[in-house]
Amino acid sequence: MTELQAVSWTGDALRLIDQTLLPHRLEHLEIREVDALVDAIVRLAVRGAPALGVAGAYGVALAMLQAEREGWDRARLEAALERIRTARPTAVNLAGGVDRVRPLVDAGLAAVLEEAGRVLEEDVAANRAIGVHGAQWICARVPRRPLRILTHCNTGALATAGWGTALGVVRELHARGLVEVVYADETRPLLQGSRLTAWELAHEGIPHYVLADGAAAGTILRGLVDVAIIGADRIAANGDTANKIGSVGVALACADAGVPFVVAAPWSTVDLATATGADIPIESRAEEEVLCWQGVRVAPEGSRGLNPAFDVTPARLIDALVTERGVLEPAHGRTPARPGGREAL
Amino acid sequence: MTELQAVSWTGDALRLIDQTLLPHRLEHLEIREVDALVDAIVRLAVRGAPALGVAGAYGVALAMLQAEREGWDRARLEAALERIRTARPTAVNLAGGVDRVRPLVDAGLAAVLEEAGRVLEEDVAANRAIGVHGAQWICARVPRRPLRILTHCNTGALATAGWGTALGVVRELHARGLVEVVYADETRPLLQGSRLTAWELAHEGIPHYVLADGAAAGTILRGLVDVAIIGADRIAANGDTANKIGSVGVALACADAGVPFVVAAPWSTVDLATATGADIPIESRAEEEVLCWQGVRVAPEGSRGLNPAFDVTPARLIDALVTERGVLEPAHGRTPARPGGREAL
Repeated sequence: MTELQAVSWTGDALRLIDQTLLPHRLEHLEIREVDALVDAIVRLAVRGAPALGVAGAYGVALAMLQAEREGWDRARLEAALERIRTARPTAVNLAGGVDRVRPLVDAGLAAVLEEAGRVLEEDVAANRAIGVHGAQWICARVPRRPLRILTHCNTGALATAGWGTALGVVRELHARGLVEVVYADETRPLLQGSRLTAWELAHEGIPHYVLADGAAAGTILRGLVDVAIIGADRIAANGDTANKIGSVGVALACADAGVPFVVAAPWSTVDLATATGADIPIESRAEEEVLCWQGVRVAPEGSRGLNPAFDVTPARLIDALVTERGVLEPAHGRTPARPGGREAL
Repeated sequence: MTELQAVSWTGDALRLIDQTLLPHRLEHLEIREVDALVDAIVRLAVRGAPALGVAGAYGVALAMLQAEREGWDRARLEAALERIRTARPTAVNLAGGVDRVRPLVDAGLAAVLEEAGRVLEEDVAANRAIGVHGAQWICARVPRRPLRILTHCNTGALATAGWGTALGVVRELHARGLVEVVYADETRPLLQGSRLTAWELAHEGIPHYVLADGAAAGTILRGLVDVAIIGADRIAANGDTANKIGSVGVALACADAGVPFVVAAPWSTVDLATATGADIPIESRAEEEVLCWQGVRVAPEGSRGLNPAFDVTPARLIDALVTERGVLEPAHGRTPARPGGREAL
């Protein structure tokens, strides 16, 4: 099976799988302009915190090429980088990808591309390490074999530079022959679960059910789930974790049922400058995503929609935070920042 | 504003609002055959536990008329009644409506219609009383004014013989000028919230937001909700309550946030013959409801869907159970059955 590559560099363009067309069509976008990149990010053609980090890093190279072609001055280039950096506010990785590469602009395109390539390679390596750490933690803490795993949104190869975070842990467990079934929340409003996670699981040959988001809590309380694993868009210093809307409901059900709730993310998703979940900006998206379906109105004309893209799971509900550096247990006081603000791992 | 009537009797047919076409088209079905009634129940053209009770009661009259027209013997009539009675397994009201009227078959059509009419009238009266009791309980327990209320699925006039249960409480509070906004979970997979509840709220001029089911927990935890009110499809003797899938997630978030969680239902939804929630049969519906969207496949071909129509909220999470007979507080040990099995109200 070929590994899916959500984000790559062709030599003069950023190549993205257009995730809005999955699972029905696997098509790529080749992006050479900042406007097109911002549009792809905003409409979630590329998504997932780690993938956004890579897109942000290569976005700097793309903007430099466009600046050269179109004769931008430095101020216009910087404004373009800022637009990429802030295209979505919640995931810290997007701004992190831009910020890591941006200081190399004066060193030239080759230096920028080399650093962006490192962002990509490090993410793949981090994902593999997350998979191993996560599988070890779960194997040590969850007795039932084979495992029944619930996940939310998409955290696989499509959401990263490759392999996956939470879904990377699932893939590692599957490679060890330990997975009975994966319950994939459909993840309204944009259905990353039924469109993308189900597609990746099918691609990997992992047995799975798609279920409505509302069915997750009842499925957990009925004893059908041994462990839940999700990704993260930003992790505060105290371990509070912003992730796709619907995540905290899974965490609450797990806490009630005594089922371990695991967050898997690269350390780059940890933001020690954000003290707690209350300080994480939560993106509000267009009402129409909730009120319509593929352009067709579902709700009555005149009804309003509330569409927060993320929610915050408090650290007290997170049994394990799996990173490439190892595992923290926020619910038991092991948070990303030690007293004094230093990194715990 | 005219009151919506989801179920009524024309003189020779059962008249139903076809709820699958809302909010875009308000059309009625006139049903004269048992097959058509069972079909309407199964595909949720008529739905909501109290409305199903009325449909079941009038279904007996409809079956008698068809039996006369087509020369059925008694065994065939009884089989037809059994088919209506069991068309959906979770709501106790459907079987209850049939069972209440069935003993009058020998007394003739007029007696059956009179009793069915009483089922309908009693439901409307019960709904009004539920509204008053629920509003009083909430006013006494929730200090904030005006109120921000979250609800799940549809429990309004469309789900009952008229007025509504949980939404009846909302309407009573609105009539008292106490409602700031209603958060209506869209209620996947069949979107009774965004299609039906939003339509009823718009019809009543009550400000509201539609939100994805996954957004309910985060919205409650962010402090945006003062009280959550849902309906019920069956309430066990110990207070455990089966309701539309997604309900228990709302209850868990309310418990975590210290927000009162209220169930509103007529006493006919209480089933003292069912000891606990573990004894309530949970309807599994077609996988396609989750895997498709209005007939268009969303998930990859080959992915399976898990589609339980209901979940069970344990009594310990239910702060108030509002019925026309008064209010019980299951979380504080006041359950529908007293020791010895007698009715608590």
